[in-house]
Amino acid sequence: MTVRVGVIGGGQLARMMIAPAVELGIDLRVLAEDEGMSAQLAATAVGDYRDLETVRAFARDVDVITFDHEHVPQDVLRALVGDGVQVHPGPDALQFAQDKLVMRRRLAELGIPQPEWGAVRDADELQAFIDDHGGGAVVKTPRGGYDGKGVRVVRAGTDAADWFSDLADGEALLAEELVSFTRELAQQVARRPGGEVVAYPVVETVQRDGVCAEVIAPAPGASIRLAEVAEGIGRAIAEGIGVTGMLAVELFETDDERILVNELAMRPHNSGHWSQDGAVTGQFEQHLRAVADLPLGRTEPRSPWTVMVNILGGPAEGALEDRFAGAMAEHPEAKIHTYGKAPRPGRKVGHVNVTGDDLDDAVYTARAAAARFL
Amino acid sequence: MTVRVGVIGGGQLARMMIAPAVELGIDLRVLAEDEGMSAQLAATAVGDYRDLETVRAFARDVDVITFDHEHVPQDVLRALVGDGVQVHPGPDALQFAQDKLVMRRRLAELGIPQPEWGAVRDADELQAFIDDHGGGAVVKTPRGGYDGKGVRVVRAGTDAADWFSDLADGEALLAEELVSFTRELAQQVARRPGGEVVAYPVVETVQRDGVCAEVIAPAPGASIRLAEVAEGIGRAIAEGIGVTGMLAVELFETDDERILVNELAMRPHNSGHWSQDGAVTGQFEQHLRAVADLPLGRTEPRSPWTVMVNILGGPAEGALEDRFAGAMAEHPEAKIHTYGKAPRPGRKVGHVNVTGDDLDDAVYTARAAAARFL
Repeated sequence: MTVRVGVIGGGQLARMMIAPAVELGIDLRVLAEDEGMSAQLAATAVGDYRDLETVRAFARDVDVITFDHEHVPQDVLRALVGDGVQVHPGPDALQFAQDKLVMRRRLAELGIPQPEWGAVRDADELQAFIDDHGGGAVVKTPRGGYDGKGVRVVRAGTDAADWFSDLADGEALLAEELVSFTRELAQQVARRPGGEVVAYPVVETVQRDGVCAEVIAPAPGASIRLAEVAEGIGRAIAEGIGVTGMLAVELFETDDERILVNELAMRPHNSGHWSQDGAVTGQFEQHLRAVADLPLGRTEPRSPWTVMVNILGGPAEGALEDRFAGAMAEHPEAKIHTYGKAPRPGRKVGHVNVTGDDLDDAVYTARAAAARFL
Repeated sequence: MTVRVGVIGGGQLARMMIAPAVELGIDLRVLAEDEGMSAQLAATAVGDYRDLETVRAFARDVDVITFDHEHVPQDVLRALVGDGVQVHPGPDALQFAQDKLVMRRRLAELGIPQPEWGAVRDADELQAFIDDHGGGAVVKTPRGGYDGKGVRVVRAGTDAADWFSDLADGEALLAEELVSFTRELAQQVARRPGGEVVAYPVVETVQRDGVCAEVIAPAPGASIRLAEVAEGIGRAIAEGIGVTGMLAVELFETDDERILVNELAMRPHNSGHWSQDGAVTGQFEQHLRAVADLPLGRTEPRSPWTVMVNILGGPAEGALEDRFAGAMAEHPEAKIHTYGKAPRPGRKVGHVNVTGDDLDDAVYTARAAAARFL
């Protein structure tokens, strides 16, 4: 019978599941936060994902629950599981994407390479961490951060005083060493409930102001060893914490040739948007296959290079759609993906994928096409 | 602003416009014949496309009207145009896809190569045509035929007696010579209202029982000359009759190396489904671009070969979706497209696209994957 996949959250990630769901005949249903969200077309309910009864009512009419984001509270998730609902990824896995301290502890147990880190409860502990790590650190709020929010580079224990004063009893911030990295990479894998795992080629990601700006797939100059190490890390995490669906592992490549895990996301992720047009199976289709417990699709690139450039902010005046004619006329090879969101400075409102045999050409075209929307 | 494209007809062609519409931020609205049609997700109205007031009400809330099929009556189309509605393709073009006699006359005026043909009003005229053309003919009802319906091979003037008796005064059947062809081809082009035309590579189509079964893109062994002739025919027809949107030209390749036009379709067409996964711009995206008067996308193949195999009929028991796990497990490279239709003998319920460097491999895989759904 038709599989009904319920997505909690109506953002662009839910939106981009619509296309593969239509083609695969999956009945996609979205619990949106509001009317008029990106995934409006598939929205069958509007409500607060933190409210158990709202989520429970939504879950009643679907075969599996998955997510547009990682913010559904653990008690809601666990109540669903208690009701017998299929939840992918499940709460046991999702906790590691919800709390960066819990994630760091688990990765340490799994022996996954990561920056040196510590839980710091006050300015003194942070200062001690800084003193032990070359005079600086990255401090992160364990929960709720995204796109650079909740992340701060500090040089003194007092630089995070505001965050410490917001901590409840027993809570801590995450302190990490300032990694000297040459570039950032991302490794996508998908895992089915039964254990089947497939890995995408490791990609290079370029961040600006803490936000993903560009992705190049596969990562230029990646040696076979690097690709194997990255894939091994992705597989080890997916299996070690029992992820179901897509897992994105953000990585640092250091100047002493180590690969360290930066962050995890358990859903389709910006670093995997290239796969929509650049891989045999795009990450949104793959996520649907995985959470619906269907066999996974092939992950090879369809072109030597795929470049993804985010449209950040959109036009200062008018709608994104007003720029279509210009972008399409200049760049007929660009694949445009829009999120149905109003332009706002820094906001992710769409992206462009360009595939090709020549990396420089693809980068140039993708940047130029995306710039037509600004 | 967001372009609102209204599609009349809720079949699989409208359904397959949903994915590119979502990605391009086009507001797709469908006037479906019934509840539960293939394009249900985008259906904003249900009603009879032959009823002017129904169509008029639907057209009021969209920027452009296009079609899932060619059956909307001319008087309805012309009334919309009279109301100032953008209709693509317009009635002047669409008449040539609605009436095969009108099409033959126009192609003759344009000097397009086609089988010898005649309008026959009774058995005597048909017999005369047969006598002049080697003792046989293909007889077609000028209107309403599709997928082999309304087409009959005859050897005597009396073989179409039933169709003649159904003719109204002044009406005729279309008689065509029995073309000795080595294979069938199809040429897709897209044309914008302003005149921009792009052409896809010519493809080979394989029909079974009058229904498209397989498509190979590009047509194997096609010489540069053949490809140019086919593209030239496609462009000449699109321009000669002012098509807007996708145009599919079904062609015969004869054993004396001529290319003759068999049929026309002015919409995305089964012979172009390969382009969803095999071309830079799929025909459904291209159709939306063209009818919304947006610059057209690149049409090159993304792989040396793409093979499309229709899923005809579907499983004898159960739903198409029950076969997903088997098909996906055996053929992780196959791109599956389902139409949300109940299985029924001979019915088109989906198709599979496979791309690759080796034609034999792609044909084998596409057939094997499609067969998993039977």
